[in-house]
Parts: sequence; C-alpha cells; structure tokens
Amino acid sequence: MMMPMRKMTRECTDRELIERFLQDAKTGFLGLADEGVPYVIPLNYVWMDNSIYFHGADEGRKIQMMRRNPRACFTVSEEYGTIADPVPAETDTAYMSVILFGRAEAVTDLEEATRAMQQLLEKYVPGYYNHPLAASHVDKYRSSMGSRTAVYKITDVTVSAKRNEMVDEKKFVPGRNIRHDS
Amino acid sequence: MMMPMRKMTRECTDRELIERFLQDAKTGFLGLADEGVPYVIPLNYVWMDNSIYFHGADEGRKIQMMRRNPRACFTVSEEYGTIADPVPAETDTAYMSVILFGRAEAVTDLEEATRAMQQLLEKYVPGYYNHPLAASHVDKYRSSMGSRTAVYKITDVTVSAKRNEMVDEKKFVPGRNIRHDS
Repeated sequence: MMMPMRKMTRECTDRELIERFLQDAKTGFLGLADEGVPYVIPLNYVWMDNSIYFHGADEGRKIQMMRRNPRACFTVSEEYGTIADPVPAETDTAYMSVILFGRAEAVTDLEEATRAMQQLLEKYVPGYYNHPLAASHVDKYRSSMGSRTAVYKITDVTVSAKRNEMVDEKKFVPGRNIRHDS
Repeated sequence: MMMPMRKMTRECTDRELIERFLQDAKTGFLGLADEGVPYVIPLNYVWMDNSIYFHGADEGRKIQMMRRNPRACFTVSEEYGTIADPVPAETDTAYMSVILFGRAEAVTDLEEATRAMQQLLEKYVPGYYNHPLAASHVDKYRSSMGSRTAVYKITDVTVSAKRNEMVDEKKFVPGRNIRHDS
C-alpha cells in the first residue's frame, strides 16, 4: 500500500511486533474465493492461539463461500501517513501490514467459542462488563438471533508481514510544499 | 465488520456519500482469486471515472494473478468506534464500507495513466507539487524502476455499501462500564 510498489518488499519478521499488531488492529479483511470470484469482507476479529477468530450469522454469502471453499486470506493493514519527496516516484507510505493464509472453519466447541467471544468483548469494549461471559450466555446468544450466530476461525495459518516506517522529517502535512524540500 | 452480524444488512444507497467515501478513504483492499486461493492486498488508490486506479510494479504475484484471472473485489472500510450495550450480543460497531466487484486491467493509454498518477499525488500529497505531472515524467517513471511501474484499474464495477452510524450516547470509551448503562 504505497508508491512506488518496489518498496513493498520491506519484509517484517519481528514476531513480537506482528503479534502485537494483530492483537491491536481493529479491522481485518477476509478474502474468500468462489469459483474464481474473489470476495473481501471487513471484520472485527481477535488473534488467539495462532488463529483468527470472528463471528457472524450462520448464513449469508460469506458462510456459504467458506463451506464451499475454506481457503482464506486475512489481511490487516494500518497506514501511518505519507512520506513526501520532491521526486514524485519517491512518494511513499508509512504502514504495517500482515497477510495470513489459512483454512476457515466453524468453531464447534462451545468452550472455545466462549473464549473467542470473551476475547472479542475484551478487545472492543475492554473493562465494560463486570463478569466474564458465561458459556450458557454464548450458547443462548448463538441461537437467539433470527439466524444462528456462530464463531469461525482461520487456522493453520502462514503469516507474512511488511512494514515501512515513517521518516519523520519527510512526513506530509497539509501546507507542506516541494519548495520546503528542494 | 461488527457484532452481531445480522446488523450488517444496513445497506447504504446514498450515491453521493459513497462517492465521497471512496474519494477520501486512504486504503483499499484488493481481492484476487487464483485457482481457489484468495489473496488480499492493501493499496493506495484513487476513485476516478467510476473506476479504481492504483499502481505497482509490472511484476509480482498480484500482477500475475490479475493476468490469469482479472475478476477483482475491492473493499474499503472505515471504523468509527464501538457501541457498548449491557447485552453483549448488542455490542456493535459504527462503520462504513464499500465493496466493488469488477475487472482488473493494465492502463495502456499514457494520458489516462498520467491522469491517474496525478490524482494519486493530489490525494496523498495535496498541494505539495507546484506543477502537474508531465506525461513524459510518467512514462519515464513507468520505466525507471528496476521493474516497469504501471497503472492498473478496476473497471466495470458494481458497487454496494453498508453503513452503521455511531450512537453517540452509547459510544465506548475507556473507563465506560456496564454500571453506567443499567
């Protein structure tokens, strides 16, 4: 996610940084493929036990696609601003992105599903609830909504990451002009 | 990208809002499919003449995949915070997302490629350059980089959008607790 793309080869292998990034980022983009047609859906998620967990109604295009073809890509990216340069081709973006490939499947174990739901709540509304989610609640929740709501995971993942750090003195801000830099 | 997913059916058909959203958002997620394997790549882009334009080196996995199978999905999503609720299943996310389906292809017309590059610079470093990009510069730029850098577009698009507005009095902020809401 930058220009020019040749710089996209900045691989990041810092496992701790990747873990933290996956834990903190708010939105992931799930990619599925259905007979040659790609589909990309933004999702809330948690990164837990080396898998991506998310939830959704047990119906709809996404779930149908996952059943027909469980191969999944999950991409998380954050952008930290544009790096300005007098040479247009050197304009660049500061970012970090992680791409996971794995297998999408429904979580059938209630205890595992409860842990994932609990993690989701702790990630998106930390400290809001006074008590941990009861498994009975999750079970009720799963079946309470017109359509059954289920927990899914992307597992058996391979992970790759890229990173381009901001160059503070070249960060683009409104009002910055090539005159200041040449 | 919310919980619960049943609320994801909030379709947005406000064309002006969709246009503005696509113009302003910084990162899009390109989905491709290669023999059943999905691939999702974060990209800078511009929305111009009903197409998504981006650029990249004329090589690499993305370009190979686009050549083999031009069917593309392009998803842009922004998240505006979490809506807290005493009922865990009512926890929700404020967001807007747009999903486009179309055909990916290389832009072969130099004038069109120049306009797209110009728009990219105007979007990511507005006001930075004093002169518009010369076509000769784009041509030079396209061939100057170890690998040839080219402009691509996703065209013939169908667009759908979803939106869930923030409920200000329920917005989650650190320190908010269920006690305040029940």
